[in-house]
Amino acid sequence: MAVKDVKKVVLAYSGGLDTSVILKWLQTTYNCEVVTFTADLGQGEELGPARKKAEMFGVKEIFVDDLRETFVRDFVFPMFRANTVYEGQYLLGTSIARPLIAQRQIEIAEQVGADAVAHGATGKGNDQVRFELSYYALKPDIKIIAPWREWDLTSRTKLLDFAEQHQIPIAKDKRGEAPFSVDANLLHSSSEGKILEDPAQEADEIVYQRTIRPEDAPDKATVIAIDFENGDPVAVDGVALSPAALLTRLNELGKANGIGRLDLVENRFVGMKSRGVYETPGGTILLAAHRAIESITLDREAAHLKDSLMPRYAELIYNGFWFSPERRMLQALIDTSQHSVNGRVRLKLYKGNVTCVGRESPNSLYSMKVVTFEDDQGAYDQVDAKGFIKLNALRLRLGAMAGRRGGAL
Amino acid sequence: MAVKDVKKVVLAYSGGLDTSVILKWLQTTYNCEVVTFTADLGQGEELGPARKKAEMFGVKEIFVDDLRETFVRDFVFPMFRANTVYEGQYLLGTSIARPLIAQRQIEIAEQVGADAVAHGATGKGNDQVRFELSYYALKPDIKIIAPWREWDLTSRTKLLDFAEQHQIPIAKDKRGEAPFSVDANLLHSSSEGKILEDPAQEADEIVYQRTIRPEDAPDKATVIAIDFENGDPVAVDGVALSPAALLTRLNELGKANGIGRLDLVENRFVGMKSRGVYETPGGTILLAAHRAIESITLDREAAHLKDSLMPRYAELIYNGFWFSPERRMLQALIDTSQHSVNGRVRLKLYKGNVTCVGRESPNSLYSMKVVTFEDDQGAYDQVDAKGFIKLNALRLRLGAMAGRRGGAL
Amino acid sequence: MAVKDVKKVVLAYSGGLDTSVILKWLQTTYNCEVVTFTADLGQGEELGPARKKAEMFGVKEIFVDDLRETFVRDFVFPMFRANTVYEGQYLLGTSIARPLIAQRQIEIAEQVGADAVAHGATGKGNDQVRFELSYYALKPDIKIIAPWREWDLTSRTKLLDFAEQHQIPIAKDKRGEAPFSVDANLLHSSSEGKILEDPAQEADEIVYQRTIRPEDAPDKATVIAIDFENGDPVAVDGVALSPAALLTRLNELGKANGIGRLDLVENRFVGMKSRGVYETPGGTILLAAHRAIESITLDREAAHLKDSLMPRYAELIYNGFWFSPERRMLQALIDTSQHSVNGRVRLKLYKGNVTCVGRESPNSLYSMKVVTFEDDQGAYDQVDAKGFIKLNALRLRLGAMAGRRGGAL
Amino acid sequence: MAVKDVKKVVLAYSGGLDTSVILKWLQTTYNCEVVTFTADLGQGEELGPARKKAEMFGVKEIFVDDLRETFVRDFVFPMFRANTVYEGQYLLGTSIARPLIAQRQIEIAEQVGADAVAHGATGKGNDQVRFELSYYALKPDIKIIAPWREWDLTSRTKLLDFAEQHQIPIAKDKRGEAPFSVDANLLHSSSEGKILEDPAQEADEIVYQRTIRPEDAPDKATVIAIDFENGDPVAVDGVALSPAALLTRLNELGKANGIGRLDLVENRFVGMKSRGVYETPGGTILLAAHRAIESITLDREAAHLKDSLMPRYAELIYNGFWFSPERRMLQALIDTSQHSVNGRVRLKLYKGNVTCVGRESPNSLYSMKVVTFEDDQGAYDQVDAKGFIKLNALRLRLGAMAGRRGGAL
Repeated sequence: MAVKDVKKVVLAYSGGLDTSVILKWLQTTYNCEVVTFTADLGQGEELGPARKKAEMFGVKEIFVDDLRETFVRDFVFPMFRANTVYEGQYLLGTSIARPLIAQRQIEIAEQVGADAVAHGATGKGNDQVRFELSYYALKPDIKIIAPWREWDLTSRTKLLDFAEQHQIPIAKDKRGEAPFSVDANLLHSSSEGKILEDPAQEADEIVYQRTIRPEDAPDKATVIAIDFENGDPVAVDGVALSPAALLTRLNELGKANGIGRLDLVENRFVGMKSRGVYETPGGTILLAAHRAIESITLDREAAHLKDSLMPRYAELIYNGFWFSPERRMLQALIDTSQHSVNGRVRLKLYKGNVTCVGRESPNSLYSMKVVTFEDDQGAYDQVDAKGFIKLNALRLRLGAMAGRRGGAL
Repeated sequence: MAVKDVKKVVLAYSGGLDTSVILKWLQTTYNCEVVTFTADLGQGEELGPARKKAEMFGVKEIFVDDLRETFVRDFVFPMFRANTVYEGQYLLGTSIARPLIAQRQIEIAEQVGADAVAHGATGKGNDQVRFELSYYALKPDIKIIAPWREWDLTSRTKLLDFAEQHQIPIAKDKRGEAPFSVDANLLHSSSEGKILEDPAQEADEIVYQRTIRPEDAPDKATVIAIDFENGDPVAVDGVALSPAALLTRLNELGKANGIGRLDLVENRFVGMKSRGVYETPGGTILLAAHRAIESITLDREAAHLKDSLMPRYAELIYNGFWFSPERRMLQALIDTSQHSVNGRVRLKLYKGNVTCVGRESPNSLYSMKVVTFEDDQGAYDQVDAKGFIKLNALRLRLGAMAGRRGGAL
Repeated sequence: MAVKDVKKVVLAYSGGLDTSVILKWLQTTYNCEVVTFTADLGQGEELGPARKKAEMFGVKEIFVDDLRETFVRDFVFPMFRANTVYEGQYLLGTSIARPLIAQRQIEIAEQVGADAVAHGATGKGNDQVRFELSYYALKPDIKIIAPWREWDLTSRTKLLDFAEQHQIPIAKDKRGEAPFSVDANLLHSSSEGKILEDPAQEADEIVYQRTIRPEDAPDKATVIAIDFENGDPVAVDGVALSPAALLTRLNELGKANGIGRLDLVENRFVGMKSRGVYETPGGTILLAAHRAIESITLDREAAHLKDSLMPRYAELIYNGFWFSPERRMLQALIDTSQHSVNGRVRLKLYKGNVTCVGRESPNSLYSMKVVTFEDDQGAYDQVDAKGFIKLNALRLRLGAMAGRRGGAL
Repeated sequence: MAVKDVKKVVLAYSGGLDTSVILKWLQTTYNCEVVTFTADLGQGEELGPARKKAEMFGVKEIFVDDLRETFVRDFVFPMFRANTVYEGQYLLGTSIARPLIAQRQIEIAEQVGADAVAHGATGKGNDQVRFELSYYALKPDIKIIAPWREWDLTSRTKLLDFAEQHQIPIAKDKRGEAPFSVDANLLHSSSEGKILEDPAQEADEIVYQRTIRPEDAPDKATVIAIDFENGDPVAVDGVALSPAALLTRLNELGKANGIGRLDLVENRFVGMKSRGVYETPGGTILLAAHRAIESITLDREAAHLKDSLMPRYAELIYNGFWFSPERRMLQALIDTSQHSVNGRVRLKLYKGNVTCVGRESPNSLYSMKVVTFEDDQGAYDQVDAKGFIKLNALRLRLGAMAGRRGGAL
């Protein structure tokens, strides 16, 4: 199955044991030059060691990039403009990071003249799909190496044996198997596998890394304000922040208040159900805030159109089609809707809850004058409602007259 | 504008001041016989006084019906099968009650030979639409009287004057104006108007009637189990309950744990934005539970199809089209999906949070054997992923080869 | 019901009997100044007489505008980018003209300082809705006069009496009632009412005005070529043409070949079914051509996304929501898809049929190399199909293993 | 890649050269017992020779089934209830036959105790997907053999060599390569490949087999009547016919009048564009007839809901997901809508055109009384339109007042 004749490959390299084994395996199996690419997406690990390890393997071209601002500005925020959730709940923290990693990997491949890319995702998951669809969309003739689908290091023992054979250092805590698998970036942390595989069992508290337990959060609520411009958040409590700084701030607030935990069984694109535990503290706050600012600034039908297309948009991102015509078309529709999504939302954060307690906007469409229970001085003529109802009812009445009462067919 | 020549009208009568004024106004304005209909939908008020008051007005045909089981079984549960929320958040507690009231009102009209029906909804809201669309769909030649759109009692003072003139008793606490308007039934309580009209201001705690503050809820989580059959809940903590009893039980649990509060700006069908505060304690728990049981029992594409149609379905209910062909068609699709939605969900209730901590089902589609990070003994061939990705990527690659990289158009 | 206190009104004025009566009626009823606006949208009537008649009524501000290029470029073409048909068949020829007329009318109102606009559409049809929604969206405080909903000239006799009383000249052929009602512009001609009201009866040949009978068309096919740029047609048979000139040319070709007739029962926005006969010769050709050029230049999912949203987009235009946020959002999505919709389509026109006989494009995504039945030299690896199928089947297999064979639920 | 250890395989066997080679290849490669299954789906070939040939190869279990009625009743008609077209044009004649063949093949496999099935579809097309998704959905543990993806008979020469080596008779006209590939059944005939591969070139007349040229059709129109019950056609010209007999009759009428030709570039599920020429004479008539009967019997929103979901439904059938939960759910929705789709449609067939010239129904929702241009005696109150428009406009007016004129965002 494996691609042959690879001259130079750009590996998405974390510096951890698994991708170190992959690095060595690529060198020995393909006898090719390996270029490493390590991205800081806010996963919370130092990148220095990754560079050092790569050097140790004799890698000559080493890329270590801080992509946090790009990640939040060009991927996370556009996605949040749509109030995107997959299967009603999941905020797509892993999904949205993959196309950026792939994009940068392809840029590097073109820069260094590599003919292949490689990633460390397994053959059962969604990430392989997200990486590879992005690679192909950006560089259709790229060769792709997915070691986990190719090699015979199919057990932990074999992997460790390979590591020892090739003098790959194994951290003490990596000897035993991790009790679950983690992915993290500035938007979220996800955990799955092993001890989480039985969906009837509650996730153990050790799984959670980004948030404290609601029970352990302060007994007093924290109230914050988020400002929006063109649908994107730009300030917290009146302090303007860059995209990554803003999300970092919301993560701190969310973490401290036990916000953003999610225990979910989801449907993978490759056809199976899987159970994941997600922590998206800042994103959970942001979603509530964005919905709230839209609630006063967005026209009803604009909002409903967005809502009706959101599941499709979420599915595209989940399935790895960020770099696709259909995602771009939907994005054009979504972005068009955000010009007047400006203003301030106040939120109460308390032990896992995010509650909107106020929204205001220079572009508000909320009209107290029209909606009021008091005398509206003619802003709205209640008599209009009669005709509105009668014509909306006409087809139902004609149906009922034809013997189809109550909307019968 | 008013309908003329009414002989007998069935009034949706709560027994409160406003509908008492309407009752008298109908008698004096139309010089017609008034039949009262008072429904117990779980709003939490005694119905005895309504009967007495109606008698006092000389009403001869008085209907007082307990519709709670019908309400939950035939309206609430079918709606929850779709995980229905309007505008991403609202659980439609008011919307779903209106068609049932209208249906019963029309049944009574046919039984007593009335040629008209009347309701107490105002000309600015959605409820007039929901009532009247239902009336027309069920009885296309019915005459409809909507006093609030017709009369000249347009201020509180005029209304009270009318009441006094006609010896309608005014409860002391009704002298002054209520600070906001309330609708309630077994599913929820809603509050709007007056002190709630400024969406920038937090709702005062006095608004909340069905739930305690999360801050006041127990410091220890309550874990419960809900059993489902064919998509509907049938038992709580192993105790089989009728639909209304089950929702009542969930309401108690939700109330005690501060669950189900929502402060929202929504878009009305009549074209304006309004601000509402909703409390749906049991419904909020039920939504989480239903999503969770579906997560292991429903096929991916079945779930996604439901998700993609849910906003439309919610809009129909919100707008008052319960008795419409399109709602029935969507219901057929939804109900078809629920045959295997059976099993048990365990939920943790804690200070406003509802968290799923376990789901199991005799009809589970979750396959630990397939998804496992461990050796799956051939249940899934990772090599298949390569072909899957390559053919999913083919159109993107052909696009990129034609100069449209990254899904450009 | 009528608006009071009108100072100056801009009337959409055709110069015909009905709008002449309206003109006079406005002058006498509202005692206001009337400004006339007559648009050339390619309806095929001379506009000189309209000006003269308006002068005769003492109108001081008379606007006669040739809007044909604007109509086709900014309204017809954008709509055709979506392959728009209402209820599977109707090309929306009337619907798409109304917002332009309304827009120009509002521009004139602002220019001349008028506080009202008036139109000649009846109270049963869609056009009143299309006009008035556009007026309100463009100028929310405009006063609208819809004489047909207000006056008492409810029979032909009364109308003629009014005309005679006010010395309005009545053309001899207008004495009797027209056997059906007509609307026409450069895109189409529509006929409805009177002799067409029974949908069981075939439309008489006299109804058709824009096309000859297929039976009378040439016995030999005409083959034409249409060139597209960015989704819009720019040339016929290699001759570059302005939008209006191009549509005119296609109308000639369509007419001569009996193309574009449609006899339809449709659903009006106001709630009733109506029967219309439409002739859209050039538009019918254009739709076929646009679909054909998209078939080789548009990505599959881009095309399917457009197809899935088209019914909604068509409904918006039909219902009069051209000037709405949701139409603009959909337009953004549609327009984004058209950048590479370039190339040439050849079509055979023959007695009512439009058949594509060739398509080619510099932006073609059709790859003979990949699709060929011959040896493709590795462009496509048939083995990939196995994995593609197996993972697409996985959820179905898991379902079947759980007892739900054949996709049962 | 190949499946091993096959004991008994059920082959979809046409009796032609290719599937005869497959038969022999299965026997020699897998050393397994082959069971043949030949279906009459109305492809217009005699099935006797297939049986004889199978006997000649030593096949002991031979199934030859006439599935025409099942095909039309349970597959074609349900699909036509949705007015199904793929990519705006294709009537899915091939797609809809595959699940039935697969279903019968699996039934036979279970009956004879076979552990595998095999088909003759290539690795580039959609049919392999349609067959195999159906197999897997119906019998998740079935082994599937797809010879064209496995063997090395990759050129015509090799195939003929193999045939000669194994004494497989080669019809004289099969020596040379067919100039294009054909699939046929009672619904349609499709042609693709070879001489049709260049989409810029018109299809040669020799491609067409099911229809005469419009030019060669009678100079006089044929008018027919089709009766519908519950959305399905039941009679032609007043003569009740079984499903297959009815479609056969419509095919004759369509063929004689040059109806149902389509030359198309379509998007395959496997990711490439392909060019096909389809002839669907009866189906083209049926689609027009069904749309026409729905136009007077179906509620507007029911029809629009169907229209909005049709592209998705068509895509599912095209992609091979007939036996899927989501197709079943959509079918439930569609079928629910058809109860009142009863009545008679008259159509004019003329040189490629199908024109509706009349529709009538006992369940008609068309109300001449309401729609009439004449005095409607109060059936519709034109004044209602004002309120209808004003409330539909309210959000647009509020938007414009907030500075967003004309639906700007």
